[in-house]
Amino acid sequence: MRASNYLFSTLRDAPSDAVVTSHQLMIRAGMIRQVSKGLYTWLPTGIKTFKKVENIVREEMQKAGSLEVMMPGVQPAELWQETGRWQKYGPELLRLKDRHDRDYCVGPTHEEVITDLARNELTSYKQLPLNMFQIQTKFRDEVRPRFGVMRSREFVMKDAYSFHISQESLQETYDVMHQAYCNVFDRIGLDYRPVQADSGSIGGAYSHEFHVLADSGEDDIAFSDSSDFAANVELAEAICAKTEADAATQALEEVFTPNCKTIAAVAEFLKLPVEKTVKTMLIKATDEEGEPSIIALVLRGDHAINEIKVEKIKGAVVPFEFATEADIIAKVGCQPGSIGPKGLKEAGVRVIVDRSAAVLSDFCAGANKDDYHFIGLNWARDCAEFEIADIRNVVEGDPSPDGQGKIVIKRGIEVGHIFQLGQTYSESMKATVLDENGKAQTMWMGCYGIGVSRIVAAAIEQNFDDRGIIWPESIAPFQVAIVAMNYEKSEAVRDACETLYKDLQEKGIDVILDDRKERPGVKFADCELLGIPHRLVVGDKGLANGTLEYKSRKTGEGEDVNQSSAVSFILEKLA
Amino acid sequence: MRASNYLFSTLRDAPSDAVVTSHQLMIRAGMIRQVSKGLYTWLPTGIKTFKKVENIVREEMQKAGSLEVMMPGVQPAELWQETGRWQKYGPELLRLKDRHDRDYCVGPTHEEVITDLARNELTSYKQLPLNMFQIQTKFRDEVRPRFGVMRSREFVMKDAYSFHISQESLQETYDVMHQAYCNVFDRIGLDYRPVQADSGSIGGAYSHEFHVLADSGEDDIAFSDSSDFAANVELAEAICAKTEADAATQALEEVFTPNCKTIAAVAEFLKLPVEKTVKTMLIKATDEEGEPSIIALVLRGDHAINEIKVEKIKGAVVPFEFATEADIIAKVGCQPGSIGPKGLKEAGVRVIVDRSAAVLSDFCAGANKDDYHFIGLNWARDCAEFEIADIRNVVEGDPSPDGQGKIVIKRGIEVGHIFQLGQTYSESMKATVLDENGKAQTMWMGCYGIGVSRIVAAAIEQNFDDRGIIWPESIAPFQVAIVAMNYEKSEAVRDACETLYKDLQEKGIDVILDDRKERPGVKFADCELLGIPHRLVVGDKGLANGTLEYKSRKTGEGEDVNQSSAVSFILEKLA
Repeated sequence: MRASNYLFSTLRDAPSDAVVTSHQLMIRAGMIRQVSKGLYTWLPTGIKTFKKVENIVREEMQKAGSLEVMMPGVQPAELWQETGRWQKYGPELLRLKDRHDRDYCVGPTHEEVITDLARNELTSYKQLPLNMFQIQTKFRDEVRPRFGVMRSREFVMKDAYSFHISQESLQETYDVMHQAYCNVFDRIGLDYRPVQADSGSIGGAYSHEFHVLADSGEDDIAFSDSSDFAANVELAEAICAKTEADAATQALEEVFTPNCKTIAAVAEFLKLPVEKTVKTMLIKATDEEGEPSIIALVLRGDHAINEIKVEKIKGAVVPFEFATEADIIAKVGCQPGSIGPKGLKEAGVRVIVDRSAAVLSDFCAGANKDDYHFIGLNWARDCAEFEIADIRNVVEGDPSPDGQGKIVIKRGIEVGHIFQLGQTYSESMKATVLDENGKAQTMWMGCYGIGVSRIVAAAIEQNFDDRGIIWPESIAPFQVAIVAMNYEKSEAVRDACETLYKDLQEKGIDVILDDRKERPGVKFADCELLGIPHRLVVGDKGLANGTLEYKSRKTGEGEDVNQSSAVSFILEKLA
Repeated sequence: MRASNYLFSTLRDAPSDAVVTSHQLMIRAGMIRQVSKGLYTWLPTGIKTFKKVENIVREEMQKAGSLEVMMPGVQPAELWQETGRWQKYGPELLRLKDRHDRDYCVGPTHEEVITDLARNELTSYKQLPLNMFQIQTKFRDEVRPRFGVMRSREFVMKDAYSFHISQESLQETYDVMHQAYCNVFDRIGLDYRPVQADSGSIGGAYSHEFHVLADSGEDDIAFSDSSDFAANVELAEAICAKTEADAATQALEEVFTPNCKTIAAVAEFLKLPVEKTVKTMLIKATDEEGEPSIIALVLRGDHAINEIKVEKIKGAVVPFEFATEADIIAKVGCQPGSIGPKGLKEAGVRVIVDRSAAVLSDFCAGANKDDYHFIGLNWARDCAEFEIADIRNVVEGDPSPDGQGKIVIKRGIEVGHIFQLGQTYSESMKATVLDENGKAQTMWMGCYGIGVSRIVAAAIEQNFDDRGIIWPESIAPFQVAIVAMNYEKSEAVRDACETLYKDLQEKGIDVILDDRKERPGVKFADCELLGIPHRLVVGDKGLANGTLEYKSRKTGEGEDVNQSSAVSFILEKLA
């Protein structure tokens, strides 16, 4: 591509509503423009990267045996009514009527359409397993579209759906898709984690999210520093390395802790490490007779409660709800800030202690008396009746639940999600095939999504500096930029540029020749803003010595390259 | 691809609502399935061909210097209100409201969005010309979707838009696009014609349609048998090789022609060739004072009137309208079936004679008296006052208007359309750039569409037989089929198939290995229905002699091929 025939549309500043880096840089680099709230046009520089991502996704899906199809974007309401999602989906589903007043939606996902196809086309177990994918524009009417293409209303997804005669077959394809997704992100060159996840609103039982790690991510991912383990912080099991409390060495003492409303304030007041304190929270529950009751949750002072885990406690009210202050005073006789485990059992409160709190000794806790705490508390001696459970969020440094290494927590951007849908859709839509015995069997289903447009933004969030984007080579809009100095006037520069341009193109390299009548500073800035991995500057000065100036966008390192070996130099860099 | 992992979905019969061949064959070959009226899912076999067409279109657009972009499918009403098309477009525009009750449409075309982009991004003539394209799903809410993907509601278009500082620059890009379109259809291998066309409702002045010739086409195309000339029948100039009438040899005679209501009936009754007769039609007009008047149109008996040409006659009522029977009787004194040119001028009727009728001699015409016609009529002697104009449709055998060869008429399917939009959109949306003198200039625009999904159907309409589709190699879902006989039981067949399959794939050939447990007849039928150009049958009998059976889908010719040279044999076929 010649820059003189190209549309750069680079900007010095991003609009004020662009608050995340990728949104700012995609606007500034001339990759996208907003047409309407949450609707974007992809400009030439944007579409070049987009198409490279799309091609990698397509190739890896094909290699994994998935067959490409293309379903309509506009879908008839009838199919959504069969699964009940026409009612359930809420206002994110863009509903519309055609000229004959029939109901349709602009599809945010395609479970209904593909299940309809499957029940019509598939009749025998011999046709299974079958895995089909499409790469398509979806619409989700977000109430507050934001972050550019990261959370836009229109976006491009690769969505795949697989059909099976058994759960075992589904698991096999699920594993193949898991590997295909790893291959996609490996090929692109992103730092990512496949993460155990809740399956969310799509239904089904077993799922993994694929997260690109980036400080700006919306999700906290806990992963091992020495193994493949990774999970959403909310779902990761909190392990305690210590299995038993040390023996008591201190006597129990009640101390005055005036105006200490939080455990941090108590620890500071008493000059105790917060790890030697526990906090106690009371939540609503129902007892075995179905009567309202109260459960006490005890955690180490520095740990945070995990509501998802608490909701799994038998008897806990779902959704999670704290006991009222009035209930607490009635039951325990103090304000919430002074509750502690000692004596609760006797007051008729069930006590559940987190694993890490249960191994403390000589610790501090509320005395169930306003403005008083205990110090030198020890479970076995002072407060022996309680249950132990995992009710906290993991923190960095926790042992990894798989027994290998320690937990690290980073923020992630979800770019892929694979689900075992099970039989949810095939049951409601009666998608069956005949098995070996000629008996109708409801098919098992998996579904597998990748946000193609979102990957572009996520890759930027992971790879940028103050001058712009630093693309992985696999998806850079151009692999190489030739920056011509004084192209208009110097025949030597022109000849050198044209030869190099032709030679690089012949090697199949995606190269842009910046032949514009612009100052070198403008060209360099555009080159860095666009994140082109390799830059060769062609100027009279260098040519006099037979050299070009090379610079790597990633390392920022430069070197003089022999003009005659420039092509092989670049080929080596790209290898 | 292995057939055992593939979704064939071939059918013996097409549904009854599939009336055109391409629709029937696309259903039967498992290329598409209807989801809802005018909405289709493309199955694996369909998408394979579709993607090959899409890639050819993309590559040729890129070669022609067009930059790929991607605009949103859902478009805000505001832009359409600026050009007035929100009101004008009619019910084919699928309008909808988002969750905030704002108006949008699902875009059938993108002039507004791209012009909005251009006015924001383009500021200087130096950025021009600029040509951008996208390949995208469009929606047109057809009142009666039909013919499968040929006239569906959702369809995929390549739409390109160019911006210019002058009409001359627009013409240059227009010519480049014209050539790019020829390259697309040449590469696919279709018999097509670029045809001069009216620009229709998109506005602007100059346009060409690209038609794939096929008997089932909806348009009549007139083209020269010896040159590039081609035009819609309605627009082609009708030339008369003869420039002057021969001298009269017969006396004028009035003859009784009872119950002859048509010129064909008159000719038959009088035993005259219809080419020696004229028919006369009266149409509504306004005279120079603006008063209602009548014009007589005189054509040779075998020719058909062309309303578009007639509407260009000064004074003719637009849209074209015949005079009422009452007017005719009042003005001429006879029923419409007996009108003739002689005496009309005297009755105050303006007479316009088609070029081919004006060179007749000794001809037959109505006598302006019920049930009577003249024979032996001659213009100069009997009826000298008239104007000559081109008011008829061309017919086969007419001289080509460019002076080269004769007119041939065939039916065509419109698959592409290029327009010079001029300044229509840029004026209404105020899309200007600064010219060399720093003065704001309204940009000139061109737009260029190709129906990607429609090409697939049109290619079938041009290439099929009673066994199925006969794809051009460039867009066949597979280039080669290896049909295994007794794959399950014969190790020799299995080995030969696997080796051949691997070797062909290594050469980059798109090959399907039919390893299914099916009868040979089923495999052969699927192969022919799908239109795979080259077939190699691998069976024990042939292998005993070291041969495979080759068959060409196009010619139907077969031959034995040496097993060891099968790959080079296929490479030669594909060359």
